[in-house]
Amino acid sequence: MSPPELPLVHEPDNFRRACDAARSSGARVGLVPTMGALHRGHAALIEEARRRAGFVAVSVFVNPTQFGPNEDFARYPRTLDADVDKCKAAGASIVFAPAADAMYPSGEETRVHVGATADPLCGAHRPGHFEGVTTIVAKLFALTGPCVAVFGRKDYQQLKVLTRMAADLFLPVEVVGLRTVREPDGLALSSRNAYLSPADREAALSIPRGLTLAWQAFAKGERNAGVLRGLARASVAPVATSIDYVDVADPETLRVLADGDTTKDRALVAIALRIGTTRLIDNVVLGEDPPCIASP
Amino acid sequence: MSPPELPLVHEPDNFRRACDAARSSGARVGLVPTMGALHRGHAALIEEARRRAGFVAVSVFVNPTQFGPNEDFARYPRTLDADVDKCKAAGASIVFAPAADAMYPSGEETRVHVGATADPLCGAHRPGHFEGVTTIVAKLFALTGPCVAVFGRKDYQQLKVLTRMAADLFLPVEVVGLRTVREPDGLALSSRNAYLSPADREAALSIPRGLTLAWQAFAKGERNAGVLRGLARASVAPVATSIDYVDVADPETLRVLADGDTTKDRALVAIALRIGTTRLIDNVVLGEDPPCIASP
Repeated sequence: MSPPELPLVHEPDNFRRACDAARSSGARVGLVPTMGALHRGHAALIEEARRRAGFVAVSVFVNPTQFGPNEDFARYPRTLDADVDKCKAAGASIVFAPAADAMYPSGEETRVHVGATADPLCGAHRPGHFEGVTTIVAKLFALTGPCVAVFGRKDYQQLKVLTRMAADLFLPVEVVGLRTVREPDGLALSSRNAYLSPADREAALSIPRGLTLAWQAFAKGERNAGVLRGLARASVAPVATSIDYVDVADPETLRVLADGDTTKDRALVAIALRIGTTRLIDNVVLGEDPPCIASP
Repeated sequence: MSPPELPLVHEPDNFRRACDAARSSGARVGLVPTMGALHRGHAALIEEARRRAGFVAVSVFVNPTQFGPNEDFARYPRTLDADVDKCKAAGASIVFAPAADAMYPSGEETRVHVGATADPLCGAHRPGHFEGVTTIVAKLFALTGPCVAVFGRKDYQQLKVLTRMAADLFLPVEVVGLRTVREPDGLALSSRNAYLSPADREAALSIPRGLTLAWQAFAKGERNAGVLRGLARASVAPVATSIDYVDVADPETLRVLADGDTTKDRALVAIALRIGTTRLIDNVVLGEDPPCIASP
């Protein structure tokens, strides 16, 4: 007898009913929102949700409103069959994979907007991106109902923006951030790594190296934001096709520190850049996270 | 033995718990969001909610974010003790009267925005008003949980904007609109009527008269938007201190019709104006509502 299939639902109403039924039977509900193209980082999110909830929903939806007009929406990898297998292996209870016009039916016109937390870093370089993220996640939260939602810390600003949204709107959702999963050589797992040629991938290692150089300096007592930033930037500048930002910021408010500023006892170093045409992001919270690689 | 007191809660968490407990005990939950200064129109909303739900919550909150800088937030009537009595008489189960900084704590920065439905009419004349409305009501919906929410049709655009928001964000809320309650002479009940002098109040009757003139013309077959609009406008123009708008619009999309347009079989006529310093609004849906007064 083959193991039971993992339920795959496409209709929002059916997804809502499944979550309601799980809750009615006494289960806590967990939610892992994804854009598919799942990797071991997503599997870790699902496993964490499974530790916290008896019923774990994974949404797979490449959300059009969080992509800019010149971004990679069209070519973003779509691998639903493989995604469902990975969800099942990681312990998911249901996969929700709606069509775009199910989440954004004709005539819809509501957006959820978060302010200052969404303004710097990726917010400054991807106009409208976080409004797309908060809008789709608000929809997913409403369909799922009271739940624990698990997000990766590679998208650190996204995590903070969604935490802000849930608190500000009194949503019955516990937002949990999970440490970034990395390859043995330090590269943060990302669905967009699939775009990288071998040479690109080698160049991309400058990102965890740069973050770790800042980490080591901080561990030795360096608190000048400009020095920390400069160490990370010097690592990536020679190989990046273009740099969106290399910034040191407050890890809670995401306010970017000027080069003359002194960090507190925790500081976010965040990087966004392009290798070829592939946009990669990564970060480390100095004073909290381990180094990205043992020795850069 | 005196009758039991109606529970009055101020803390959002306590309000959420009360609604959750009611649902757990098997009751449907009803919600009537108000800004207090309750009148018989609000009582009708509470009674309608009571017909639809076993547990009815009334929120009383003068929401600062829906008032413009030169509007009447500071002088808006605040009558909580009398409001609680009226809630009890109308069959409410609980009153939620939070402090402003409980609904908007320091650091909050999330807003809910509805697009085209919120743009014309009051949206064009009160910048930011509907964003304030949708934001506070999203918060109230989240605290209340799955519910039926009852709103008055005097605030017709608000009703449509909130219906849009609930649908777009998949909120587990049934939004119900209830017919405007009027004085015997046709004046729509409004908390702001308390601002009117006897002479102002007489002048304000030009509003239901103008709406009814349009109603009568429509009943006789008139479908030209400009003619219908002109009848309503001619009634109020001589007595209004200023007119924000007298418009004919699609009753679903709220798209304003030009004077040369022909209405469908239903049409909204909406008025916003000032009598002295008091802003009044009113409306009628031709082809659906009864006339505002028997004979204008």
